[in-house]
This record gives sequence, C-alpha cells and structure tokens, in this order.
Amino acid sequence: FFCRKKCINRFVSGNDFFILLLFYIIFIFNYFYKFHLDGDYLKILMDERGKKYLIKEDREFQTDLGIIKKEQMERATIGDTIITHLNKEFKVIKPTVNDFIDLMDRRCSILIQKDIGTVLARTGLGSGDRVIDAGTGAGAIALNFGNVVGEKGKVFTYEIREDFAEVAKKNIDDFGIKNIEVKNQNIKDGIDEEEIDLVFLDLPKPFEIFEDVKKALRLGGWLAVYAPYIDQAETAYRIAKKLGFRDLTILETLEREMEIRPQGTRPKTRMVGHSGYLVFARKL
Amino acid sequence: FFCRKKCINRFVSGNDFFILLLFYIIFIFNYFYKFHLDGDYLKILMDERGKKYLIKEDREFQTDLGIIKKEQMERATIGDTIITHLNKEFKVIKPTVNDFIDLMDRRCSILIQKDIGTVLARTGLGSGDRVIDAGTGAGAIALNFGNVVGEKGKVFTYEIREDFAEVAKKNIDDFGIKNIEVKNQNIKDGIDEEEIDLVFLDLPKPFEIFEDVKKALRLGGWLAVYAPYIDQAETAYRIAKKLGFRDLTILETLEREMEIRPQGTRPKTRMVGHSGYLVFARKL
Amino acid sequence: FFCRKKCINRFVSGNDFFILLLFYIIFIFNYFYKFHLDGDYLKILMDERGKKYLIKEDREFQTDLGIIKKEQMERATIGDTIITHLNKEFKVIKPTVNDFIDLMDRRCSILIQKDIGTVLARTGLGSGDRVIDAGTGAGAIALNFGNVVGEKGKVFTYEIREDFAEVAKKNIDDFGIKNIEVKNQNIKDGIDEEEIDLVFLDLPKPFEIFEDVKKALRLGGWLAVYAPYIDQAETAYRIAKKLGFRDLTILETLEREMEIRPQGTRPKTRMVGHSGYLVFARKL
Amino acid sequence: FFCRKKCINRFVSGNDFFILLLFYIIFIFNYFYKFHLDGDYLKILMDERGKKYLIKEDREFQTDLGIIKKEQMERATIGDTIITHLNKEFKVIKPTVNDFIDLMDRRCSILIQKDIGTVLARTGLGSGDRVIDAGTGAGAIALNFGNVVGEKGKVFTYEIREDFAEVAKKNIDDFGIKNIEVKNQNIKDGIDEEEIDLVFLDLPKPFEIFEDVKKALRLGGWLAVYAPYIDQAETAYRIAKKLGFRDLTILETLEREMEIRPQGTRPKTRMVGHSGYLVFARKL
Repeated sequence: FFCRKKCINRFVSGNDFFILLLFYIIFIFNYFYKFHLDGDYLKILMDERGKKYLIKEDREFQTDLGIIKKEQMERATIGDTIITHLNKEFKVIKPTVNDFIDLMDRRCSILIQKDIGTVLARTGLGSGDRVIDAGTGAGAIALNFGNVVGEKGKVFTYEIREDFAEVAKKNIDDFGIKNIEVKNQNIKDGIDEEEIDLVFLDLPKPFEIFEDVKKALRLGGWLAVYAPYIDQAETAYRIAKKLGFRDLTILETLEREMEIRPQGTRPKTRMVGHSGYLVFARKL
Repeated sequence: FFCRKKCINRFVSGNDFFILLLFYIIFIFNYFYKFHLDGDYLKILMDERGKKYLIKEDREFQTDLGIIKKEQMERATIGDTIITHLNKEFKVIKPTVNDFIDLMDRRCSILIQKDIGTVLARTGLGSGDRVIDAGTGAGAIALNFGNVVGEKGKVFTYEIREDFAEVAKKNIDDFGIKNIEVKNQNIKDGIDEEEIDLVFLDLPKPFEIFEDVKKALRLGGWLAVYAPYIDQAETAYRIAKKLGFRDLTILETLEREMEIRPQGTRPKTRMVGHSGYLVFARKL
Repeated sequence: FFCRKKCINRFVSGNDFFILLLFYIIFIFNYFYKFHLDGDYLKILMDERGKKYLIKEDREFQTDLGIIKKEQMERATIGDTIITHLNKEFKVIKPTVNDFIDLMDRRCSILIQKDIGTVLARTGLGSGDRVIDAGTGAGAIALNFGNVVGEKGKVFTYEIREDFAEVAKKNIDDFGIKNIEVKNQNIKDGIDEEEIDLVFLDLPKPFEIFEDVKKALRLGGWLAVYAPYIDQAETAYRIAKKLGFRDLTILETLEREMEIRPQGTRPKTRMVGHSGYLVFARKL
Repeated sequence: FFCRKKCINRFVSGNDFFILLLFYIIFIFNYFYKFHLDGDYLKILMDERGKKYLIKEDREFQTDLGIIKKEQMERATIGDTIITHLNKEFKVIKPTVNDFIDLMDRRCSILIQKDIGTVLARTGLGSGDRVIDAGTGAGAIALNFGNVVGEKGKVFTYEIREDFAEVAKKNIDDFGIKNIEVKNQNIKDGIDEEEIDLVFLDLPKPFEIFEDVKKALRLGGWLAVYAPYIDQAETAYRIAKKLGFRDLTILETLEREMEIRPQGTRPKTRMVGHSGYLVFARKL
C-alpha cells in the first residue's frame, strides 16, 4: 500500500543522473517488494465442492470438473470466478498461510494448528519480530512465523537434512514470502543470530543448545520448545531453569470440535488426545 | 486506495531543490514512523522479583525497591540494567504485546490467550491483513491483531461505549502502534470497510450482522465469533451456514499447565474449565 | 468359605424328623445359593496372548493354539492352567462383569466404562440397592448394576424391543446372576416398582417419564440420565428441576490414557472426544 | 468371618429344647444383623436448604431452623418429615455412602468421586468381592468398596497411623457396615489375605509391595494404584510389567460440569485440572 516514489518518476524532468538512478533503484526495489508482499501472484482455485488447488503459474488446468484454458488463467485475478468447459465454477482466492500449507509438499509431519496458536498467543509474536526455528521440516512453522512477523521481521530456520531444507526452500519460494532464510545447518553447531524475539525448537534433545539460545535471545525474548513426551518437557524445563530462564511454563492444549446435527449438539466423538507439550521460558 | 505521495507528484515542478526537499521529508517522516512502529519509545521495567512496570515517560520512578532518578530513566535504553538507590536491579525491556496488555488499563474482561491463539492459528492471520474487531473493550484483542498485521495491515475496532473506546484509544496510543483505528460506533449500524481478511466478533447476538460481515469480507476471509454459551455458538453456526458461509467449525480449547515439583510432575490441580466457544466461518 | 449348616449336620444325632428336614432345606437352599453367587459355574479361558474365551458348558474346545478335551474342561476349576495338545497354556479365570460383557452377545452399542463409573460413584450405588434401568439393550448396564447391588439388591430393566430383551435375558442368564429382571415393556407405559434407589435412563426423550420416576424413587433416590446431545441434557435438567428434583448436575467425563514408551511418556494420540452427558437429579 | 452356626455345633447336645433355642438365637441374631446391614438405624436429616445432618442416636436436635424433640426423633423413620418448633421441615433420609462420607469426620484428604468411579468401572468390582485397600485414611474409599461388595464381600483396609485407623473404625462403625476390617498395620510388613479381587493402593512407593500384592490377588484380580504424579505412575507401571502383571493401563479422568443459566449453557468456568493418575494391572 505504499505507492511511494514509483509515481513520482514520471515528472522528473531530465535532471541529475544520480537522482534518476536513485529513483530507478527505489522503483525497482519497490516493485518487487510490493509484488511479493501483496502475494498477488500466488493464487489458489477452489471448486464447488470446496477442494483447493495451488496454481504456481498460468497454464491450462484440467480437473474432473472440466478444463480451464491458459488464457482464462492469465486473465484471472483474486476474487474472480472462472467457468470450465463443463460449466463448473472455480473461484480464485488469495490463500492464507494455512491454505498454502494444506496444499504444499509436506513430507514430514507438521505442527498442528492448536500448538502454533499457543506459541503465537503465549509469546505475543508480532510484526517486525525476529524468530529462529529448528528444525525446519517442510517449512510449515517457518511459514506461520514468517506470515506473522512480516517484511520488517525475519525468520531464520535451521534444518540439518538437506532434502528437507530443499523442500522447505521451494515451499517458501512458492508462497512468495521473502523474510524466511532456510539454513541447511545443524543448529547444535551454533546460532549465528542475535537479538532474537523467539526461538522455537522442535528437535530431539533441544536442551543441549539452551545456552546458545540464551545468548541469541534479546532481553525479554522467548524460548519455546515442542516436546511430544513429558520427560522431554521436564528436562527442558529443568535445564532452562538452571540456566536462569524465567516465566517457565509447560502447557498442553486440548482442542474439541462441536458437532451441530439435526438431533442436537455435541462434541465430536473423536479428538486428538495429545500432540505435544510446549515448554516456554523467557530470558529476563 | 492510499493516494499518498502519488498526489504530491503533480506539484513537483521539475527542480532539484524541491525533489531533494521531498526526499528529506520522506526520510524524516519514515524515520519517526518506523521509530514508533518499532516501539522503541515504549519500555517496561522489571524488578528482581519479576514484577513489571510500564514506563510511559521518563521521570523519577519510586518503588519499594528504591528510587530511580529521572536522569537514569532518560539514559536507559532497551536491554540496560538500572540500579536504584537501594542497590536493586531493574531491567529495561521492550515489552511484547502481552507484557503491555498485562500492565495496561483493563476495565473489562479480556479474551484469554488460548482463545486468541486459536483465532490466530485457525485463520492464519498475518502481516498485511485487514481486520475488523467488535466490541473493542479495553482494546486487548485489537492490540493482539494489530501486533500481528503490522504496519502494512490495519485493524478497525468498533466499540459502542464511549468510555471503553476512550480507554482503548489511550491503551493503543501508549503501546505506540499506528495501525489500529478505534471506531466509537455500533457495528450493528453498518460496517464501513471492505476486503477484510478477518472479522472477529465478541458481541451479544453477533449473528444479527452476519450479512454485513459477509459483504465486508474478501473472498476467502474469515468470520470468527467468540461465544461463551453453546446456544450462542449454535445460533451463530446455523445462521452463518444459512448465509452461505463455508468451512464452519465450532471449537473449544482446554489448556492445561504441568507442574514440576521435587516429588514429580503433574497437571496443575486447578485449571480454567471453560472460557468460550469459537465459531469459525469462511466466505468462499 | 461358608461351611455353614452343612457341617452342623454331622453332629445332629438322629433327632426329630422336622429338625432334619429343616436342616436339609437350609442345606439345599444354601447349596444353590452359594452355587450361583460364587459364580463357580461360569469360567473363562485366557490364552497366552491374553485372548479371552467364554465357556458356557464343558465340551471339547478348539482354537488355533490347540485342542482342549472335554475331560480337561470338566476337571478344570477357577485358577487352573490347562495345556492344549499343542502344549499351549490356557488359564481358567473367574470373569469379572467386564470380562463377561466383553465376550457376550452385544448387538447394540453399550455404555462405556467411564460413564458407568461416573454413575456408580455419583449415586453411591451399593449392595442391597434397588435399581431401574431403561432401555436394556444387550443388558450390559443392567449387568453392571446387578453386579454391584448383589443378591440383596434388585435390578429391573425395561426394554421395549423383544429381540433386545431376549438377548439381554440370555446374557444375564449366562452370567449366572439372579437379581436382574428383564421386563419386555415400554417404561413409558408406567413403572411398576417403588422405593427405588436409582433410575437410570438411556432413552430418547427420557423426560417424558420423570413424574413416574419421581414416584418410583425412594426419598433420597437418584435419577441418572444418559444424553448424547447437550440439548437433551438441558431439557432433562430443566424438567427435572421443574418437577422438584434437587442436586441437579450435568457431568461429562473425559478419559485419557497415558502411554509408556521407550522414548518417554505421553497421553495417547487418540482419545474418545465425547460419549454423552450424564444428568443427575435427586428426589429430596 | 461368619463363624456363625459352625461354631455353635459343638454345643448342640442332641435335644429339642436346645436346638429350638439355637434356632431362636440364630433368628434373633440374623434379625439384628440384617437390620444393620440394611442401614435402617442410620438416618440423616435434611433441612429445607438441602443441608444434611448425621443423626447417630435419637436425642433432641437443635438447629437455626428450630428444635426437634427427642420423642420426634425416636418416632421418625426413613421417609418421614419432621416439623421443628419454628415450623420448618426436616426430612429423614437413608443416606447413601456419599451422603455419609460428606458428613463423617475426614481429617485427611479423600479420593474424589471421579477416581472412585474409574476404579469401580475398570475393575468391575461387585457384590461378594474381596478387596484390600491401603492406606485407609479416614476410611472413605474403604466405605465405598464396602458399600459395593456387600455383606458377602469383604474389605481389608491397612493403615499405618493409629489415629487415622481409629477415625476410620469409628466412621465405619457409624455407617453401620460390617464387612470392613481396619488393620492398623503397615501393609509393607506383609499382606495377610489371599484370593483378593482388588488391591487398591494410595501410598507413597506402592511398587515396593507389588510382589506381595501379586501373591494376594486371585488369578484375574486387579491391582489399582492412585498416583498424583506421573513419575509415580510410570514407576508403578514399569514394575508391575516386570513382575508379569498384564492389562496395564494408566488412566486420568477429567470431569466437567455443565452450567444451565438463563443466558445459555456452558461448562463451568472452574474445574479440577488434575487429581491423580490411576494405574491398573491385572494378575493373569
């Protein structure tokens, strides 16, 4: 929404070369900047059944509900409805980060929403914050963080496995977000960053690097650890405490969905009984 | 729709001086602008017991742990440690949005973190998003949203009561965030905004405005309703369904905290049994 | 261990015919009495894998772990180990009511243990109590109640469907318990009993008979209603309240199982999210 | 423990008179015996506000709602309504075991109902079963078990502290139940009983006696351990497994109460977050 110096250019009447150059640089910069941050280029299609399709580039698109031509795809913008040759409607939607994660290549399990929500709410993560995340996996949690911290923030995501790092990079690139740096290195070999607002660890033996984490955090920054087993959560808690972290908490969240049926309302018969514990500790 | 500098262009009369001046103005403007969005001006103090104090301006500060002089306050920057005349340490911390909400004037009950987390995670709210929130109350949830959507995003928060709107405005101002507009008007009289990513309603009878909400939402945007009673959640669900919303879900979150004691580990004896249901519905 | 009048006989030195007759009657009575209440005749087999088999009568028994001859079966008593021709061990066990319910013919869904436990604990049901249960289904809950109230208590179980009533009768007969009366009649046509300690209803629209239930209960007796939907539970609650019942409560129980694995301990990933609500109301 | 007529035999000297006398004595004995087991002698009063009073003997009874004379108390039987001199109604009620536990002397914390329910339901405890319980405390859980196993069953309850054992004895005596034996001895010094259906342990380091427990249990009998901390539950689980127990389970129960208010229905804001884990293991 900052259509800044771009427009000004037209009126610059043959002055200093430097000024023009400057404008040009600003223009170029803003163009790509706006471009990606608006996410205008990423769109998903949704058919009448609610099924979503990720569209990476404009080409002919075939489904069981009919064909959409390349020309249709090119003309389509966010909010449009496209009609296939079988007369079925597809809507063009700007995906949320969750839409994208649903559709992207996920070759390893990802953190479930309730746990991401707990991390976001507990740490108060916001625009402009700097986050470290390890390990990356397919990049889902990095995308969630990147989505929140915005262009003024930054996410550094460490992944030891090269194949995962590649997948994550591709996913992040496809989503069109610029503030996530995938680092294909072992976070246990050292943390390069400083003045970090949140370090999120979903690793075996995360406590081995709590000293490094403490150095990397800003005063007031949060360490959050995802631990499937209570024993891991306990060890993380005890070591964080020993290292002087404060505001230590171990949380577990249970999410219930209610069903509305003609006969009445009730919680769903099946629910996720457990995903993991979240250990929070703050550098203070 | 932000016709900012674009409009200015017309007046630029082809000479270096004005252009340079313009750059200078933009620079200065951006400097202070950024400055505030970084929240550099807002700091909190934390004493050795972990008690937090909100510091709105630099003046002498007295506590039971001793006096901090005005000069000390002025010199202090984020990350510093200040020593009182009683030789007690106070740390200067950049507050998270949660720190600020803990300390701000809250004259009405606020949504608890687990529910905010569910809304953030479920809707995938992120940087640049546009949010409507009603009713504002003391502004806590608006601050949470504002913190996430960042300077490229926007929060419009409707509050019918003038006293609450005043408190919220002051709180938002104190936090130093510029992307929240408090609207002291009844959202049931109409919604002024369009192309909204998330409408969050914590109101009696929220379903009365679901048609307006649908118009205000972008395609793919979310409606989220906080309902303490299951009956309200049901009604919201049914009416949203009738109006063609999709991806309807009623969620309830239970948060358990684990206790680490010398004798062993266990969930805390007391927990919040219920706060409210969250109804989610999407315009698709 | 009740070697009662049986032993006395030896010392009776040829006295009155009547006295002998009397003893004889007592003896006979006790014999059958003991017989059934000890449940000596019902036994289950358990193989090395923990699989259970219900043995209704002594005859040759074939499994994939080998054959047990009729003679072996006849000689076997509770606590014995039987060896098949393939040299596999089967243990002869006195079944608990739960073992029996696991193995019996269950053609309709049965109440899960956590809910039975809540009813037993909340109402303080005990030996000698008189219980009404409707509808019977396959008789599982009646067996649970019969198991608790013992020979001095009584369970009247109403079932409208003849086929279910037949199955239940057979199950109850097989378990060898004498204190349960299966009534193949619609409880909504009237309740025949009085001075009842507990009326348990697992029926559609249970509230239609709350007036009758109140008459049937003793002062201090409990009404317990199983309601899968919150709406049913609410209606039951309101009508019970209107009819003057007291100590009204709606409960819901969540049961979590912990897993002990080599990596650590955690709640199971899957759990039952909901079975039903239990409404309790007391005649006072 | 019912050494009834067996012992008498030795004295029967072959003549009518004695034998008839004997029968008469047996009759009388049984009459009073039954009498107590029916709990006819124990009654509670309930005033109009629902407040309960335990009445151990018939004498003048004074409350803020008026005086009930000794004569009124003597005449009153279960189900009656008594009027005080202030014209207030008191109802005479046969207490359930829960009513009694609410009113009895409880100088130590007692197991909450949800956990008792889980033990009863999981083990299928019933009439005629033999139970060991340690430690007794004020006797609440022994009363619950005694109430279920009835006069043909038996509860042996071990309590190391003499003061608790005394309180428990008095409570059990007051409730008028005859099938509970309070043993003021350390269960860790050995278990005297055999062929037990359920051993319930609410002790520090219960696993120290699991070998003895296994000997004391019948084939198919259950060990149930109450453990407030997950670490205790884990240790109990692992040791029980090592000793060859089967059907090992660690359960935790969460109980939610629903509130019916004019505005709507919702789970209560406060709930018990945790009481303890229950470890179940079976001798098979």
